[in-house]
Amino acid sequence: MSNCIIAQSGGPSSVINATVAGIVKANQLNPLYEHVYGGLNGIEGILQERFVDLTNMSDLENRLLQQTPSCALGSCRYKLKRDNEADFQKIISIMDHYQIETMFYIGGNDSMDTVAALSEYTASHQIANHRFVGCPKTVDNDLVETDHCPGFGSAAKFIAATALQCWYDINAYPSSRTEVFILETMGRDAGWLAASACLSNKVDILIVPEEPFNKEHFLNRVKDVIALRSKCFVAVSEGARYIDGTYLSCGEARSELFGHTVLGGAGRALEQMILDAGIASRCKVQDLSIAQRCHATEQSLTDVTESFQLGMSAHMRTADPSFTGRMVGLKRLPTEQYVVSCFDVDAEKVANFVKNFPSQWLLPDYGGISEEARQYMLPLIKGTPEIIYDETGLPAYIKPYYLVR
Amino acid sequence: MSNCIIAQSGGPSSVINATVAGIVKANQLNPLYEHVYGGLNGIEGILQERFVDLTNMSDLENRLLQQTPSCALGSCRYKLKRDNEADFQKIISIMDHYQIETMFYIGGNDSMDTVAALSEYTASHQIANHRFVGCPKTVDNDLVETDHCPGFGSAAKFIAATALQCWYDINAYPSSRTEVFILETMGRDAGWLAASACLSNKVDILIVPEEPFNKEHFLNRVKDVIALRSKCFVAVSEGARYIDGTYLSCGEARSELFGHTVLGGAGRALEQMILDAGIASRCKVQDLSIAQRCHATEQSLTDVTESFQLGMSAHMRTADPSFTGRMVGLKRLPTEQYVVSCFDVDAEKVANFVKNFPSQWLLPDYGGISEEARQYMLPLIKGTPEIIYDETGLPAYIKPYYLVR
Repeated sequence: MSNCIIAQSGGPSSVINATVAGIVKANQLNPLYEHVYGGLNGIEGILQERFVDLTNMSDLENRLLQQTPSCALGSCRYKLKRDNEADFQKIISIMDHYQIETMFYIGGNDSMDTVAALSEYTASHQIANHRFVGCPKTVDNDLVETDHCPGFGSAAKFIAATALQCWYDINAYPSSRTEVFILETMGRDAGWLAASACLSNKVDILIVPEEPFNKEHFLNRVKDVIALRSKCFVAVSEGARYIDGTYLSCGEARSELFGHTVLGGAGRALEQMILDAGIASRCKVQDLSIAQRCHATEQSLTDVTESFQLGMSAHMRTADPSFTGRMVGLKRLPTEQYVVSCFDVDAEKVANFVKNFPSQWLLPDYGGISEEARQYMLPLIKGTPEIIYDETGLPAYIKPYYLVR
Repeated sequence: MSNCIIAQSGGPSSVINATVAGIVKANQLNPLYEHVYGGLNGIEGILQERFVDLTNMSDLENRLLQQTPSCALGSCRYKLKRDNEADFQKIISIMDHYQIETMFYIGGNDSMDTVAALSEYTASHQIANHRFVGCPKTVDNDLVETDHCPGFGSAAKFIAATALQCWYDINAYPSSRTEVFILETMGRDAGWLAASACLSNKVDILIVPEEPFNKEHFLNRVKDVIALRSKCFVAVSEGARYIDGTYLSCGEARSELFGHTVLGGAGRALEQMILDAGIASRCKVQDLSIAQRCHATEQSLTDVTESFQLGMSAHMRTADPSFTGRMVGLKRLPTEQYVVSCFDVDAEKVANFVKNFPSQWLLPDYGGISEEARQYMLPLIKGTPEIIYDETGLPAYIKPYYLVR
């Protein structure tokens, strides 16, 4: 019996470990592989033969793994280049050495490209019995083909709850105090995360990368909202940009002062515009930074469950010996109640594309999102798993495997 | 039978409404007052006779009020000046008009000063049957006399959990990537909130206002940690300052560029120092901003329970007709298990003091907090109340009373 290996790559999420837990659990229930290895720090660690053995993970460890944020196997930003044949050869020979037939690679765009490239390599070199399977994850929700990406629902839930809570905070002060609050989310290329703030129903103005930013239009909108109710709530993606593609976060003043280092993002840029224009007496920026992708105490139950099941489904699909170069995704069924099932698709169809937030889901005048967008997102943030806490009162997380070895 | 009024002031917290809920519930169980009014936006709204009637609040509303963040009655920054006798007279005449005998004022330092000032005024003018009672709240935990302040435990829990989760996030990358992560918390004058990040056991360097900042010493510490394990975790209070009292957040470069507007805080200042010194290839700042004081989905059960009970106790104490000018606080009993009881103290003993984080609880070389500090803080973050969610999957909050009227 051969072995398999799991590795993680790219930016962490609150539920990426649940996919690992799903693969391990599936193999315990239906042992297709003798050993389930974890490769540490993605392709980078696989090339260094840094492995752990996850085969006999206990149920408690499996449960804790599911609630542990970030990549328990470690991540990497290493990009396998198609012209670097040495890397490909080395990966195949390491897999041979450890009798690894299947590699599960959990990640975003780049990881799906890695899966596609490795599959192409083995096919074009007639190398049999080496298979590569992609599992999607990204808080950015910007992978094509899959209805949504594991990781997004939990980030969206945290962002929407935080937006709601911050609205309560800034509105507590009398209307004599005018104030603009700016919530900045991740999303270099796609506005999904900023849009999720609108689930709170408290966002007055939404700025996403998909809609070119116009300063005058924006400031007029802020003025109107302030005139109406003295407080204005703005949600903005870090990747918001002008029509010529310039990011808001790369203003001239910043680059003059800080040289190559860009300090402060889109939120700070908007703040400066508002203060310069004298529209409000106060302006606050909350940049959710990395907390939004790792705040696992508020996982969405839907998200963590789907992430786990996707891992189980990926494992099960490899019972077919021809299954390689595929990504396992989530398909939303056309039912009234929200139901998803897993399916698979060529990883290369996913690798080099970005799924933008649909422009027809954006209301005019930076006015937020449509009801259709709400109905798409709401099921993804639903439910709260029971979190296990340790004796100190903090959530109980497993020690990362990259530290064990 | 006379009436009472409750009002809130100062910066919001995740559990300040639980004190309101406690007073209302206590009066339902033991009706000392015919009506329990809520004064909107603190003293400011009381002077404008903006009231709501909370007397017959339903159990469900009471329960939801306890989990609703920020000030449901609205807050204010209005400071009652002792030489402004007109305000005092007006408050007394409004209380007379509504037959209000007792005012419960929930807030921090300034609010306790208001309680003391109003009590002094009625005493010196021989005005009987007007009483003023303070209930402490501040995420900053910097009030004297009380063992700790309602609001701190929940903020500390959120900060400690976020610190833990962010540590998992930044450590997921290979050790070849050196990185400094800086978590900035509130705390203009006291380091309690930054110190609470150390409950995660993941903070390498802690910078609080109580310990003068030395740039060279700090950078050397960062270098040492990076050399040891490639990632360095810093927690810093917004109020961190040099020995001459200058805040880190008021660096020269910023004021040059932005005029009077201070953009970016202590965290950004540390980031700039680290990047200028070339110590790490990456540096990330997470400023928890207002989320830390309103993230009520992660209330500490201890905190919300104590906040409620403190309200009940304050109400009960006013059965004594001489009870005025007092703040109700929390006393930790000298038992092995954590037990608190309520007590009361002259509000003026609290009004003009700040309780600093004890310097003997700070480890040398910005090394974090002592075991004694941990043992003080850990009980305060314990437990997770069951949160009620609405049909959208977001927490169910009551509509703020200041919007109802």
